[in-house]
Amino acid sequence: MNLDVRKSQIVQELETLATFSDTPAPAVTRIVFSEVDRKARAWLKNLCIEAGLHVREDAVGNTFARWAGTSPELAAVGSGSHIDAIPHSGRFDGTVGVLGALEAIRVLQRGGIRPRRSIELLLFTSEEPTRFGIGCLGSRLLSGTLDLARATALRDGDGASLDQLRAAAGFSGSLDSVALPAAYYHAFVELHIEQGPLLERAGIPVGIVTAIAAPATLKFEIEGEGGHAGAVLMPDRRDAFLAAAEIALVVEAAAKGTGAIDTVGTVGICEIFPGVVNGIPSLVRILAAVRDTDLARPAAVLAVIQRRAEDIAAARRVGLRSQVLNADAPTETATLVVDALRSSADACGLPYQTMVSRAYHDSLFMARVAPTGMLFIPCRAGVSHRPDEYAAPDDLEQGIRVLAATLNRLAN
Amino acid sequence: MNLDVRKSQIVQELETLATFSDTPAPAVTRIVFSEVDRKARAWLKNLCIEAGLHVREDAVGNTFARWAGTSPELAAVGSGSHIDAIPHSGRFDGTVGVLGALEAIRVLQRGGIRPRRSIELLLFTSEEPTRFGIGCLGSRLLSGTLDLARATALRDGDGASLDQLRAAAGFSGSLDSVALPAAYYHAFVELHIEQGPLLERAGIPVGIVTAIAAPATLKFEIEGEGGHAGAVLMPDRRDAFLAAAEIALVVEAAAKGTGAIDTVGTVGICEIFPGVVNGIPSLVRILAAVRDTDLARPAAVLAVIQRRAEDIAAARRVGLRSQVLNADAPTETATLVVDALRSSADACGLPYQTMVSRAYHDSLFMARVAPTGMLFIPCRAGVSHRPDEYAAPDDLEQGIRVLAATLNRLAN
Repeated sequence: MNLDVRKSQIVQELETLATFSDTPAPAVTRIVFSEVDRKARAWLKNLCIEAGLHVREDAVGNTFARWAGTSPELAAVGSGSHIDAIPHSGRFDGTVGVLGALEAIRVLQRGGIRPRRSIELLLFTSEEPTRFGIGCLGSRLLSGTLDLARATALRDGDGASLDQLRAAAGFSGSLDSVALPAAYYHAFVELHIEQGPLLERAGIPVGIVTAIAAPATLKFEIEGEGGHAGAVLMPDRRDAFLAAAEIALVVEAAAKGTGAIDTVGTVGICEIFPGVVNGIPSLVRILAAVRDTDLARPAAVLAVIQRRAEDIAAARRVGLRSQVLNADAPTETATLVVDALRSSADACGLPYQTMVSRAYHDSLFMARVAPTGMLFIPCRAGVSHRPDEYAAPDDLEQGIRVLAATLNRLAN
Repeated sequence: MNLDVRKSQIVQELETLATFSDTPAPAVTRIVFSEVDRKARAWLKNLCIEAGLHVREDAVGNTFARWAGTSPELAAVGSGSHIDAIPHSGRFDGTVGVLGALEAIRVLQRGGIRPRRSIELLLFTSEEPTRFGIGCLGSRLLSGTLDLARATALRDGDGASLDQLRAAAGFSGSLDSVALPAAYYHAFVELHIEQGPLLERAGIPVGIVTAIAAPATLKFEIEGEGGHAGAVLMPDRRDAFLAAAEIALVVEAAAKGTGAIDTVGTVGICEIFPGVVNGIPSLVRILAAVRDTDLARPAAVLAVIQRRAEDIAAARRVGLRSQVLNADAPTETATLVVDALRSSADACGLPYQTMVSRAYHDSLFMARVAPTGMLFIPCRAGVSHRPDEYAAPDDLEQGIRVLAATLNRLAN
């Protein structure tokens, strides 16, 4: 089988996609439904149409580009990822899985292959939680795992609703039409940069994911008492930010406290109100994210954080509201896909290692409705979500080669 | 002497001024040079003109409204404060000293008094540091205590320069024309709400300020390493926010650590970059403000904070840049004005107490170019910089009565 990956073309397409950004290169900022996101989607749709794919979009903007197989009535084989990018991030997260799947299809086309099952590129809407505070919006809806009332209530930081924003981006229709029918996909596979250092350290070009870590997000709203930063004496203060500072340190300690290297805890968002140099913080919101590959540990870590946060709030005489925004179960990937990935890597003559995905991906939710797997390629120093995120052309080429072989294997 | 303060009118005028706001009542947000600030200035100028005052504005928007005395060649007596308001604050901070001085002039006019010296209402530009990161911009320039190169370099959070913003608000001319000539004022007195609980607790209607506490502001910029909040393991992290959290707790501990009730320390601003739930904070900026009535203590507190911040940065392997934004000396008020305030309170039959101003005010800088004093009235529960900031009509009336008597005494 001739698998002719056009390395310079894929590098060029990744570069072009990176220009759809609200921040100057090398930083990429592409928030879902923003103007640059909409332009990027239009550009990408055009690439799919040029490749002879049939494109359709659902009510939330998930985009399907299908290459019809010789038995189009059979469940398709899907592959894809996302193109939205958090502020000041890089050009490879998600995009490699979208443009990589497109190139994998073109590779098979160039090789003169006609697969039995259709092969479908899937672009997920809003994998990143930047705009709506919840990750994997598109795949949660596709897999029927997001309550529609909750989805309808989603708003961005400016108060605009999901319904308003998707309509403005050209995606209408009821959200309850988004969930995929049963057995829509025979299998789903997502190509992604590792976002960790293991493959690079080991000098291995391909990682085959056996499990995806579970994310859990806790939102704390801390209500203290504002006042003049000069006039209110220290013993009289109920400073919301100092309570938040202590809670952030508790998140770190609780994650480290499991003793397991796989537990991580992060406070990435902290909003201070009123946020002025001469006012005591009266209201602070923080988001604490805990992730783990273990099924049971995150719940225990969350419980520790909540209990200690309550102690801090009591000691500092501040109000505390906490809310679990999401606490998703980790998942194992499907043997069907893992085996296809192993055989394909072997057939390509590429060494691989099996590994856990510490980041979570749309595949976490796709695994609920289809046999799902993931394929990792190395990224420099394990760096991601930063402008200097980087995957080498050779690694892109090898990953796409294995992906093409896998899609072909699953589709026949 | 008949001192007829029109209580309902001043209450009404404070209410009207509060409607020039970017947030709905009772919260007031009036950022310098914003549209609401400009409208409030226009409304106030009109009130001054109706009172027969001669109005002029300087290059930075400080506004002078003069009631000519019988000997207009003599140095005038000044009184005033500011009308800019931090986000989500109240309606009395600053405004009481502006509308109160206007009413004091009208009280004297109604009483048929013609003072020997001119009496001048002074509205200071940008007492609050909200827009430019530095408090008392107008009075710093009036007193020649702000380096003009530094003033010219000031920018707001959107990158707009002071020169652009004052020009857009209609204030042109060189900033070096702002400094007051020597002996411009015979005396200056500022009426203000206490912004602390002492007068209310003691049930005393008038406070006479003997010293104004010194503010010192430290800016920390903490540079860690970003990365994916799922993929980077805890031991590998250099999280800028966790360092900031520890530094904020050090600011609290250092302020409490002097053992003096007059030392306060606050972190009111914390900016996180990139500020997303799934990204490790790579860059955090915090502002720490330390205030004290003692001349020597703040420097020692700042030194403790800086030293411990450096230890924290080293332990967390993050970069740390610190900058002293301002470290102004506390000031004592002028005997001339304090004596006039005492005599006037006595003449009005009102008890008073002498006290320290823990908040700082434009009077801190006016004290460098004129004999300056301050007059406090109670505010409910000592609350300020909040929507529920409140001063009772009777307290407003009594404060303005003492102010009118004091201006008259100083002008004759």
